[in-house]
This record gives sequence, C-alpha cells and structure tokens, in this order.
Amino acid sequence: MSTTTDRSDLATESPTIDVPALENLLLGRWAEMRRAARAWGADPRLTRIEGQTMAEHRARVLEQLQLLAAEADVLRAFPAALGGKDDHAGSLARFEEFVVSDPSLQIKAGVQWGLFASAILHLGTEEHHRRFLPGAMSVEVPGAFAMTEIGHGSDVASIATTATYDPDAQEFVLHTPFRAGWKDYLGNAGEHGVAAVVFAQLVTTGVNHGVHAFYVPIRDAATMEFLPGVGGEDDGLKGGLNGIDNGRLHFDHVRVPRTNLLNRYGDVAADGTYSSPIASPGRRFFTMLGTLVQGRVSLDGAAVNASKLALIIAITYGNERRQFTAGSDTDEVVLLDYAEHQRRLLPLLAETYASTFAHEELLEAFDRVFSGEEDTDETRENLETMAAALKPTSTWHALRTLQTAREACGGAGFMAENRLTGLRADMDVYVTFEGDNTVLLQLVAKRLLADYAREFKDIDAGGVARFVANRAADAALHRTPLLRAVQTLADGGNVRRSAGQLRDAETQRELLTDRVDTMVAEIANALRPASKASREDAAALFNAHQHELIEAARAHADLLQWKAFTAGLAKVDDAGTRQVLTWLRDLFGLSVIERNLAWYLINGRMSAGRARTVTSYIDRLLARLRPHAQDLVDAFGYGPQHVRATIATGIERERQDEARAYYRAQRASGDAPIAEKLLPRSTDTAIAEPSLGKVPVGTATLKSEATEQTEQTEQTESEAATETRAATETEAVTA
Amino acid sequence: MSTTTDRSDLATESPTIDVPALENLLLGRWAEMRRAARAWGADPRLTRIEGQTMAEHRARVLEQLQLLAAEADVLRAFPAALGGKDDHAGSLARFEEFVVSDPSLQIKAGVQWGLFASAILHLGTEEHHRRFLPGAMSVEVPGAFAMTEIGHGSDVASIATTATYDPDAQEFVLHTPFRAGWKDYLGNAGEHGVAAVVFAQLVTTGVNHGVHAFYVPIRDAATMEFLPGVGGEDDGLKGGLNGIDNGRLHFDHVRVPRTNLLNRYGDVAADGTYSSPIASPGRRFFTMLGTLVQGRVSLDGAAVNASKLALIIAITYGNERRQFTAGSDTDEVVLLDYAEHQRRLLPLLAETYASTFAHEELLEAFDRVFSGEEDTDETRENLETMAAALKPTSTWHALRTLQTAREACGGAGFMAENRLTGLRADMDVYVTFEGDNTVLLQLVAKRLLADYAREFKDIDAGGVARFVANRAADAALHRTPLLRAVQTLADGGNVRRSAGQLRDAETQRELLTDRVDTMVAEIANALRPASKASREDAAALFNAHQHELIEAARAHADLLQWKAFTAGLAKVDDAGTRQVLTWLRDLFGLSVIERNLAWYLINGRMSAGRARTVTSYIDRLLARLRPHAQDLVDAFGYGPQHVRATIATGIERERQDEARAYYRAQRASGDAPIAEKLLPRSTDTAIAEPSLGKVPVGTATLKSEATEQTEQTEQTESEAATETRAATETEAVTA
Repeated sequence: MSTTTDRSDLATESPTIDVPALENLLLGRWAEMRRAARAWGADPRLTRIEGQTMAEHRARVLEQLQLLAAEADVLRAFPAALGGKDDHAGSLARFEEFVVSDPSLQIKAGVQWGLFASAILHLGTEEHHRRFLPGAMSVEVPGAFAMTEIGHGSDVASIATTATYDPDAQEFVLHTPFRAGWKDYLGNAGEHGVAAVVFAQLVTTGVNHGVHAFYVPIRDAATMEFLPGVGGEDDGLKGGLNGIDNGRLHFDHVRVPRTNLLNRYGDVAADGTYSSPIASPGRRFFTMLGTLVQGRVSLDGAAVNASKLALIIAITYGNERRQFTAGSDTDEVVLLDYAEHQRRLLPLLAETYASTFAHEELLEAFDRVFSGEEDTDETRENLETMAAALKPTSTWHALRTLQTAREACGGAGFMAENRLTGLRADMDVYVTFEGDNTVLLQLVAKRLLADYAREFKDIDAGGVARFVANRAADAALHRTPLLRAVQTLADGGNVRRSAGQLRDAETQRELLTDRVDTMVAEIANALRPASKASREDAAALFNAHQHELIEAARAHADLLQWKAFTAGLAKVDDAGTRQVLTWLRDLFGLSVIERNLAWYLINGRMSAGRARTVTSYIDRLLARLRPHAQDLVDAFGYGPQHVRATIATGIERERQDEARAYYRAQRASGDAPIAEKLLPRSTDTAIAEPSLGKVPVGTATLKSEATEQTEQTEQTESEAATETRAATETEAVTA
Repeated sequence: MSTTTDRSDLATESPTIDVPALENLLLGRWAEMRRAARAWGADPRLTRIEGQTMAEHRARVLEQLQLLAAEADVLRAFPAALGGKDDHAGSLARFEEFVVSDPSLQIKAGVQWGLFASAILHLGTEEHHRRFLPGAMSVEVPGAFAMTEIGHGSDVASIATTATYDPDAQEFVLHTPFRAGWKDYLGNAGEHGVAAVVFAQLVTTGVNHGVHAFYVPIRDAATMEFLPGVGGEDDGLKGGLNGIDNGRLHFDHVRVPRTNLLNRYGDVAADGTYSSPIASPGRRFFTMLGTLVQGRVSLDGAAVNASKLALIIAITYGNERRQFTAGSDTDEVVLLDYAEHQRRLLPLLAETYASTFAHEELLEAFDRVFSGEEDTDETRENLETMAAALKPTSTWHALRTLQTAREACGGAGFMAENRLTGLRADMDVYVTFEGDNTVLLQLVAKRLLADYAREFKDIDAGGVARFVANRAADAALHRTPLLRAVQTLADGGNVRRSAGQLRDAETQRELLTDRVDTMVAEIANALRPASKASREDAAALFNAHQHELIEAARAHADLLQWKAFTAGLAKVDDAGTRQVLTWLRDLFGLSVIERNLAWYLINGRMSAGRARTVTSYIDRLLARLRPHAQDLVDAFGYGPQHVRATIATGIERERQDEARAYYRAQRASGDAPIAEKLLPRSTDTAIAEPSLGKVPVGTATLKSEATEQTEQTEQTESEAATETRAATETEAVTA
C-alpha cells in the first residue's frame, strides 16, 4: 500500500532532504547554546526516572538544579559582575532544552532563576542584586515567586496581600487578610524555599500604590521551619510536574526592612513618601510584570521541543509498525502508509515546524529588547503581544501532538517507558500557568483592536463605520482587493490548476491575513456602541463578543507562524530540502485554512468548488510528504539519549523482520499448515456440524448470511479483507 | 455581567427543572442497579487513594475485587446454576458505575469478569463452566485474557501463537514462535494471574482452523511462579490505570488437555478431527469475538460517567469562582457568566446528555440480544455496529471533557485532589483498547457501505451510479427532498425566524441524516472502480478514502446520539424540564452542525446567511442554558462522596464570600486605603520621579504612551478595565 505515495505527482523523482543542513537551520541562531544544553540534557544525572515517588522526584530535581548551577553555565542571564554573561536570549535557549531531560527540571529552574532570581534582577536595584542574587543564582537560597493567590489567579492586580509601611520601624508589614489571599501553586514553597519574592499591595500614608514586589525570608535555612508569622501548606500531588514542590504561603503581620522592597519602579522613603519613575499606576504595573515576559517565551520554546519528541517517537514507530495485509498476502502495511495515519500526524509535523520558526523569531525579539539593542515601549509591547499569541498556540499544540502520538502508538503509547503519557501529564499545566491561554488570547485581541483603532484614528467614527461595513459585510466582500485575488481561482474546478493557486504563497498569505483583518474590523464595529453604553452594558457587549475576540487572536497567531515558516524557507539553500519544506509549509497553511473553511465560505472568500480543492490538495501534500517524514523528524537533531522511548529504538522493526523471516522460512519449508478457508469446498462442507449444546439461534442461518456477506464485499476484495479483519479488532490492546 | 443571561429571550420567565425527576430519567431502566453500585462505589474501601505507589495501588485493587465478589452482587451476569442471575445488562450497568470509585477497579473487574470469565462462559460449554467459572467468579483464580500480541494489536486474526493438536497425547501444544508473538498489555498477567484464556491459531491434521480460545494455567497459585514453559514480563508503569498489573506472556510448547479448548464454536475430536457449527472460518471468528461485545458497551457507559464527574466539578467551581470586575467596582464576575466559559463547557454538557441517552439505548440492545429475547444475526450485528460507533465517540468525548474541565479550573484543576488529571490519565487508554477508536469507526463505515449496497442491490450499477450522482454532486443537490426542506430557510437572514427553523427538530434530523447518507453514497461511488481493479490498486483506492470513511462513521454516531437524545426528550413530563432539555438537545444538534458547517456550505445544504444563524443561535442557547447549568449536573445524581473534589465542595464560595465581606466591612469602616489612581491629578503628578539607577529607555516616554492608551480604550471603559487587568495576568498560576 506504499502505492499511496504513487498519488504524489513527484513520487518517481522525489526530492531529498539535506538533513544535517536542515538540523542546523532549525537549531537557529543559538545553536551552540542548544547543543551544549542537549549534551547536558542527556546526562543520566539529569534525566527523568519514571515511577519515582513524589518525594524522590522532588529531591532529585533539587539536586539537579544545584548541579546545573555549579557546572552547566546556566547563569548566563545574570550580570557579568556576579559571574553571569548578561545573555538573556542564549540563557532561555538553553533552559528550553531541559524539557527533554524532565519538564520538572525545566520548570524548577524556571521558578528559581526565571522568576525568583529574575524578579530580584529586574524589579530590584544594585543593592538588591548584591544582597540577594548570589544566593538565588547558586540555589543556596531556593526561592518562591509568590504572586498568585487562591482567590486571584489571572487577575493579579486584585491580589489581597498587603504590605503596609510603618515609618516608625521603617519596615513593611506583610499581611494576608483572609483565606482567598493565601499565595498558592508556588514552586519551592511546598518544601525547599527559604525565601520568596512576595507581591503585595503597597500601602503607605493611607494610599494603596498597587502591586509591588518584596524580598521575604520564609524559612529558617537550618531547620527548614517557617519563620514567625509565615505559614503554608504543601500542594501535594499534581497531575504532573511532581518534581516540583508547589505550595501555599500566608503572612500574619510579617515585618521586613523598608529596603526589602524591590524598588526599581516604585520606592518608599524613610518618612513614607512614595515615588516612582512611572506616574500612571496601571502603566507602572504593566512595566513591572513586563520584565518577566521571559517565562512565556521559554514555555513556548519548551512546548515546541516537547512536540518534536512526540513526533520523533510516533513517526519512527509508524514507519516500522505493520498491521493488516491489504495489497499483499504476506506483507502487512506499515502504519504510516495508511492515509488516516498520515492525516493524524503530518499536519502536526507541519505545525511543529511552523512553531519552531515562530519561536526563533520570538527569541530574536526577546533578545533585541533584553540586550538593550532595541528597548522601547513599542518593542516591549510587541514582544509581550507576540509571546501572548505564541505561548497559547504552542502549548495547546504540544498537548494535541503528544496525545495524537500516544494514540497513534496504541497500547505501546500508553506505557510509561515510551514517555508520551509522562510528557503529556507534565506539559498539561503549561496551557494555564504563566498566563492562562484563554486570557492571553484576549490580551492579544485587545492589542489588535487598539492597533486597528490607531490605524484609523484620523478618520471620523462614521468613516471607520463605513470602512468596517465595506470590509466586514459578508456578501459585500467582492469589493476588497483580497477577494479579487481569490476570485482569480476561477470556478469550474480544474483541481490541478486551482491547487496550483492554493499552493501559491501569496494566495495563502492573503487568505490568512484577510481573515485576521476582517475579524478584527467586525469586532471593532460590533463593540462601537460600548463607547456610549453604561459600564454594565459595555461589559455585557464585550462579553457577547468574547469568543470572536479569542478566535481573532488565534487567527493572528496562525498568521505569525505561517509568516515565520515562510521566512525560514527563504534561508534554505538546498533545492530538495526547499521543495519538501515548501510542501510542509503549504500543508500548514492549507490545514489552517481547512480548519476555518466555513469562515471563508460564509464570508464569500471561496467558492464551494474551491473549498473542496483545499482538502484534495492537502491529501496530495500528505502523499508527497510521507516519504520524507522520517528525515523531517530526524532533522530535529535529538538522539536516542534524548528520546529514550523503547518503541523508537528500532526494536519494532527487529520484531517485524524476525516474524516475517519466520513465515518466509515456513513457507519455503512447505510444512506450513494450510488455512481452512483455502481447503477445497468439498472438504469445507464436509466439516461436521454437531449441535454443541446451546448454540445461539442466529448461527442456524449463518452459512447463508456468510455467503451474502461475501457477495456484498467481493467487489472490493482487498478492502473487504482489510475491513473484515479490522472488524475482528474486538478485544485488542491493553485490557 | 449576569446580564449575559438577559440575552435569553426567556430570562424573565425562565423555566425550572424538576431535578429528582430528571435524575430518575437519566438513571434509566437499570436505575436500581446503578443506585446500588453507586452506594458501593462510595465505600471508602473501594475509592481511589491518590498518590499510592503502583505496588500499593495494585494490591488494593485486587482486594477490592475480592471484596466485590464476596459482598457486592457483581456476578449477576453468570448462570443462576452457579450463583449468578443470568442478568447481562444489569451487570454491565453496575460495573460502569465503579469508574467513579477508581477506573482501575472498573477495568480490573472488566478483565476478571468481563473478559476472562466471560470467555469461559461464552466460548466454553457446560463442562468448562463447571470446571473453570467458580474460581474465575470468586477471584480465587485471577485470570488474564491473552489475545493481543506485541506484533498484532488490531489485527487479531493474524496472531502468531499456535495451538497444535497432538492426537497421541490428546493435548494441545501452545507455542509462541517469535518475540512479536508474545501476548502483551494483559491485565492480571503482570502479577496476579494464575490462569489465562489464550487465543491461538488452532492447528490439527495440518490444517489451521483459525483463532480459538484455550484455558491455560500460567502460575503456581502457591508460589506465584510461572509454570514450566510459560514466561512473561511485567509491563510496569503506565500512563494511568496503575492499579492493574498489565503484563506479557509467552509459551514454549506448553501442553494443555484437549478439553481445555473452549469448544462452543469449534471442537477437535480425540482423533484430531475438527468440527464446528459454523462452516465459514471468517464468520466463526466473528461470532466468537462478537460474544465479547460487552467490553465496548461497558467502556461506553463508563466514559459517559467520567464525563459527568468532570462537568459536575467544572460547573460547580465555575459557578462559585470569581475573576475580574467588569460591570461593577466591587463584585467580580462568576466564571460561568463569561461567554467563553459557557462556550467551553455547555456544549460538552449537551453531548454528555446525548451520550447518556445513547448509552441507555445501547444497553437495551445489548439486553435484547444477551437475554436471548431477540438474538439473531441481525440484532447481534446491529449491536456490534452500535457499540463500535458509540465507544469511540464517548471515550474521545470523555478525554475532551476532562481536559476542558481541567483547564476551566485553572491551577486548581491540576491538583490531584481535584481528580480531573487522575481521571483523564486513567481514561486515556479507553480510546485505544477494546478496539482502537479509529479502527472501530472504519468497521462502522464498512457496515454503512454494506447497508447502502444492500439497499440498492436490485438497481443495476448504472442506476446506482445515477442515484449517487444525483445525491452527491454538490451543486446538483437542490433536487433532493432534504434540500427543499432546508431551502424553506429562505435567504435574507431574519435571524430570529431562521433560528426558529434551526430549532425545529425535523430540520436538525434532516440535516444530520442527509450528511450521513450523502457521505456514504459518495464513498460507495468513489470505491466502485475497486471492483474491477487489482487487489493492490483496490487497496490503494480504499486507502485514499479512509479519512472520509471515518468521517462518515463519526457523522453516523452523531446522528445516533441526536436521535437518542430526542427520544429521551419524549419521556419528559415536566414542562419546564422539557423546555430546558429541548434547548440542550438543540445545542447538541446545532453544535454538531456548526462543527461540520463547511460541509453543509460546500454541499449546498445551507446558504452563508443560514450558516451564520447557526452560530448566533448557539450563542442564544448558551445564554438560556447558563442559569440551568447547575441543575443539569446535579441531575446526574452523584453526591460529594462520588465527586470527592475539593473545589466542588463549596469551599470556593466560602472563600469568595469571606473576601467580599472583608472588603465590605473595610469600606464601611472608612479606613480602607485610597487607590493611587483615585487621588486628585495634582497629587498624582506631584509624585517624585527620581532616576532610580538603570531605568529602561522606554519608561521615558511612558506617561504620554499611557495617556494615549487611555484615549484609545476609554471608549469602552469597563472592557478596557477587564482587559488591562487580563494583561497583568503575567506570571499567574502554578510556577
């Protein structure tokens, strides 16, 4: 059934991929950092041991952190003066790779260095760096990042913990007013943390200046007992990431020196006078939290790497595993030759490539801002919006990919030794922490609306309304330039020709861009009445369009990925590689369009015939890409020491070859038993049919039934064969 | 923002649900069985202890099985003569409920009684019942169901294990020829099993009569050592269900008496003569495996119950949890009042109701066949097809529902104590075992094609071709009666009126039915050339349409669920309940149609305007159903002793009330700190702005930026408020 590949126009002269060159391209600008981290990541002292108890796992990950701090050059993001290298992006590129060792290690490192130490670095000033960074960097002082409260996850601005300044003692008094104000889900708070950066409402001279960060010792490093006034609980077992000791903290009038306020963006003088370089409280708050964007950037990168592992495992296994004979009596079909198997895995492979290129662009943007090379409000805002768009997209993609890979490997995919279930359990929380995906997408949509408003700020409201009406009204659409472009896909459906047009990058770009623009314009128009509405009605109006806002943000993220993939393609020199990656980019673009096909039809962007072409062209791309699937995952550059999944070691091929050799030899020797169904009819009917006690009524008519069945199915013999045996799938797999 | 509900036409006179009556309806015909099982299911001796080691969990579940056998009336499916009640359906209804105690318990029971003992019951004869059932029923003999082999999961007919008859010794010799022939993923094989029902190719007098089942002792009950010639391995840790000891078995010329062949459908006489009541080997094989359909029936039921638990937890929490103020300064919005939260959860609730009603019909069909009341080939085939359609649908639905519920509960959803992650991990393998979902759907599609062929067997090929062309060609479609019905949804988009038509049950039925019929006809037409093609080309042709086949089977399953829901509605007497359930049924039907909107547009079933109406009507249904969400999950009839999730105990409401009371008191006392942003502008600008060392370049221009921001957003003040704060979501939740 490798005949599926014959459906590709180019099967005969299929291009080849320069795998080492592609691997280098994917490793990107920080290739050296990634290679070094991967070398460390494969160190047996750092890899996950499946089946450890929570206590064992937590202890192991803490040791791993200390090992990394001491030996693995993981402190690059910190000031050179303190032994770092002021290299923010390179540092992230390294940490993202540790997800292949154990996501708990990546996240525990993220808590210690990406959140706790980074808050000291970015929210504190030189004195704080001197006093607090060395311990945080060396992990001598494991620390928690105490922002989230039980009662306020996404709405950080509303946290209840207060830090009230006492001018007489020149101290801040941290206090938790009620149960919902307990800090929760904090890594390092459950067991290992001796200090925490605590976010609280800064109150001085009777004024609440909003959320600020304070450095607060929480445990006696010797006894590991909570300090006076500090209390907490261990979060205990979680759905994954059990190498991290998440926990809760609360404060009963805990006092810290005035100088423990991390005062880069807001300070309190000895007499209680508040000062800040940023007058607007909202803007100040934004700026403080913006310095911590790296968390989202690294989750995006880690999620992409987890998706790569999943596809290496599922595609390697799918290339070796055989089930059911179809076109042949003796050779069973390789799973990846089944069209449905390709449908399940290859579009995920295409999206993984797209998100790899998109993440590299995110890291570049992060580097430009944090290196100071291009640090402006605009570049920071763009960085934050890009991270808010890509982190939800790649983390949801990772869960979908790990799950699809798991199912594509059947029962074997469910065995812990094959890693898919463990990775999925660990990655699960990536979609809700460091910014809930749904909330982040709303943030992106808000930014798209703001840009839209800015774009038309010179036009009077009526003008905008007219413009919106023109663009957004469905039928009216044939007036926009985009539509003319699409209309050149003349109706009447020569599939080959129209596929040629869908394959055109500019057509894909216009289809994807137009969708974002139109959705944003429609929403902006729909929200217009809110300007004159009561606060409550405005809120209700906004809520009524919340789903469209999120859809628009997703469409924006799809476009970002498509553009990044296309830009990446331009860097490919080898012709064969470029050809295959172009098919893969087309598969990504067309899959996004297929997913939103109803929108394109409803909004008059495509005719029914054209819409059909999308799917049939995807089918052709799948057939063309199938022979290159293994090269495409090999180019991710992870070795067996990183994959560490039994079914991806070639063991399945060995077993299949052994079995086929056995049957070949048996056939050759001639002493293979004859299959009953091949016996001459006479013998067949000669089989005695005694009544073996209670036989189901049905069996009485069985023979005729069976014959009818045969008649119905013989027209497509091999199909019937395949399906009949699929039918016998009854109790198969784990039970 | 409860104003969302005001979007419902009926908010003012919203109907009420008779919850106890609805609970009875959902419990269905086997309500008594379910109530008894739920009472047992809440017994602390039977409930899951999170965080146990694999060894502890396995030991506990084995004890639970013995406890059930001794006390809990779980042997109803077995012969009265042996202490059973010959009650097959009632027995399944009970077992499905044990998923709420611990899915490992449900599945371990399924292995022991549903597979091992059932194989003896259905494939063996009286003598086997006498000899082997008592030990299997009492769990004195824990047994494995040894069918699946490492090399053959779905393709059972191709298993490699042989049972060759030796007439001299009157014994069968079981042998595993190579590594791929090892039995794998077998519950009870890893540790507890002392016997197994082994499936092997029966060879006698040089003829292979196909797969038959043999009763084979595997371990010495005293020492628990493998018996001579038997070998195996423990599968070890899995992604879930770790209370079950899955393992591998292999046989090196292991001999069992001739009478250990479970000989109901095929026997070997002392001299080696083979006999069977079913002449066709394929049909015989079908019949044997068909007797084990109950496995799929009970997985369907268990998956529906797991979805119920997930929704009880997420909806109860979503009704108490508050995040962000929107329409008010003091009251934050309840999560379930957010439109997106409703979009995520309520369609899943609608599908859970649909699958509840569909499962009840499946259980009825199962009962008619296994009680002997209506046991014919046709009823058995219908039962098998129905199970093959519903099991994939409900198990995938359960994973989607558990995951969405997990995410809707944020970080709290990731805590093991809230059960969502544990249940999801356990349910994961339900989608690939007892019949891989994808393979099962192909089986369903094959049956749909067979029925289609049967329907037109009197028409000559040309006639069929014409008919197919008429139905399936997209544009030509306005000729079909269905389309006339749809066309009555005249264009020109009065949303209210067309929503009225989409709400019409007959319109929904026709849209869903037509999709299945048309897809099947199109595929049948596309596969026609296979009749004259070579086996290889026919296989390739079939493979080229594999994806459509699976889509057609899904559409068939959607229709089954919709019909069952609609039939269930007819049994509701209370007007208010009927009104709400009708909205819920409409939400289910319209959600299925929305999911396939592109198909309806491409095939000319709907105009663009009509398609828009689908989504806007769904929005109205969500708003109408929102006030009834709690009643709808309460009606599932599970108490806190079954749910056992901390966040679903009301604890969140207590915390929220405590917090709001605190702020109310603070406002009343007048000593609440003043928010900086509320200070008179003069004071604001009076804030000193010293240069605090290194300040990002950006902050220089921050004030003007901030002002511009404000200008842009003030038009929708509260929206801006909500979103600005969403923006601050940065490091929130577990980290």
